[in-house]
Amino acid sequence: MSQEQGILFVLSGPSGAGKGTVCKALMGRLPEMRLSISATTRQPREGEQHGVNYFFKTKNQFQTMIESGQLLEWAEVYGNYYGTPRTFVEEKLAEGSDVLLEIDIQGAMQVKETYPDGVFLFLIPPSAMELEARILGRGTETEDSFATRFGAARDELQMMSKYDYVVVNDVVEAACERIESIITAEHCSVARNLYLLKEW
Amino acid sequence: MSQEQGILFVLSGPSGAGKGTVCKALMGRLPEMRLSISATTRQPREGEQHGVNYFFKTKNQFQTMIESGQLLEWAEVYGNYYGTPRTFVEEKLAEGSDVLLEIDIQGAMQVKETYPDGVFLFLIPPSAMELEARILGRGTETEDSFATRFGAARDELQMMSKYDYVVVNDVVEAACERIESIITAEHCSVARNLYLLKEW
Repeated sequence: MSQEQGILFVLSGPSGAGKGTVCKALMGRLPEMRLSISATTRQPREGEQHGVNYFFKTKNQFQTMIESGQLLEWAEVYGNYYGTPRTFVEEKLAEGSDVLLEIDIQGAMQVKETYPDGVFLFLIPPSAMELEARILGRGTETEDSFATRFGAARDELQMMSKYDYVVVNDVVEAACERIESIITAEHCSVARNLYLLKEW
Repeated sequence: MSQEQGILFVLSGPSGAGKGTVCKALMGRLPEMRLSISATTRQPREGEQHGVNYFFKTKNQFQTMIESGQLLEWAEVYGNYYGTPRTFVEEKLAEGSDVLLEIDIQGAMQVKETYPDGVFLFLIPPSAMELEARILGRGTETEDSFATRFGAARDELQMMSKYDYVVVNDVVEAACERIESIITAEHCSVARNLYLLKEW
């Protein structure tokens, strides 16, 4: 399968699902997977390297990237801009590497518009009760903010139908195994292998 | 996921792909997978049991099954009838078991009409050269019959586009692992998990 192009896997889901933990565990298990690197206008923190943790950009540079369609998605958070550069992702895919992009639901829906060939994974907690426990477990929530967060997470769950796969994050290693199976299966999809017919 | 229904996996592909070998290996690896049992009008051979190897039927019984839509597919081979009883498959699926059906391309295309919810896997040899070696390896082919078989297999390969997945059978164990990944992935597909939304 030498001519095969890589696949963009978008790992998303409601807050409290454990996206960050699963993403980190996956990267440890899949040495050939490339992690998408975000562009941002915020200042580098100590130890952060350009091209490793982020692509650091000025606001003007970021604005130009938005206007020229160089971002698969972007958002403004507390006055700083964050986004996913299309070029980095497309270069890795062209080299035959898969790319993993961890992102919130709003970002994932933008990526679905700009890169519909991606595979969209929706990570969910195993139950409402477990989500409740995870939010409370952070120990930083007042009663009001808990209700808000819990309600928001339940609303976000309804976005599941926009995704390709749903992965229950009961145990991190089990969730990783499911995602690795999805990666293997997607590489076997007929749509991605029609080039084989030419080789016969 | 208690309310989940099983999935019908249809393992098919050109002759020489190794469907029978892979099917047998898979059944050995997946104790919870149920193998679809065919109905046939041919006489039982020594040791064959009704309901284990085949459902043995008279021609009249078989005709009735065809007419009443009880077969997912059927064919006549050298005067005997063979077919896939719908009831057996649907019962196992309703119990939550996955069902594996190994069948030639013509049969698989019939099943796709009668049971489009199935997942259709196209098993192929790793290369034209390997297919040639496998056909010659049987040692039963004249030069003419080799050319016919090889040409037919190449034509059959073009049917790949009608399937959901293509699995290269380079090494049987590797092909089994790919198929097991596809099984896991299909159980994670959003379309099969929308019932989860009701549980929240």
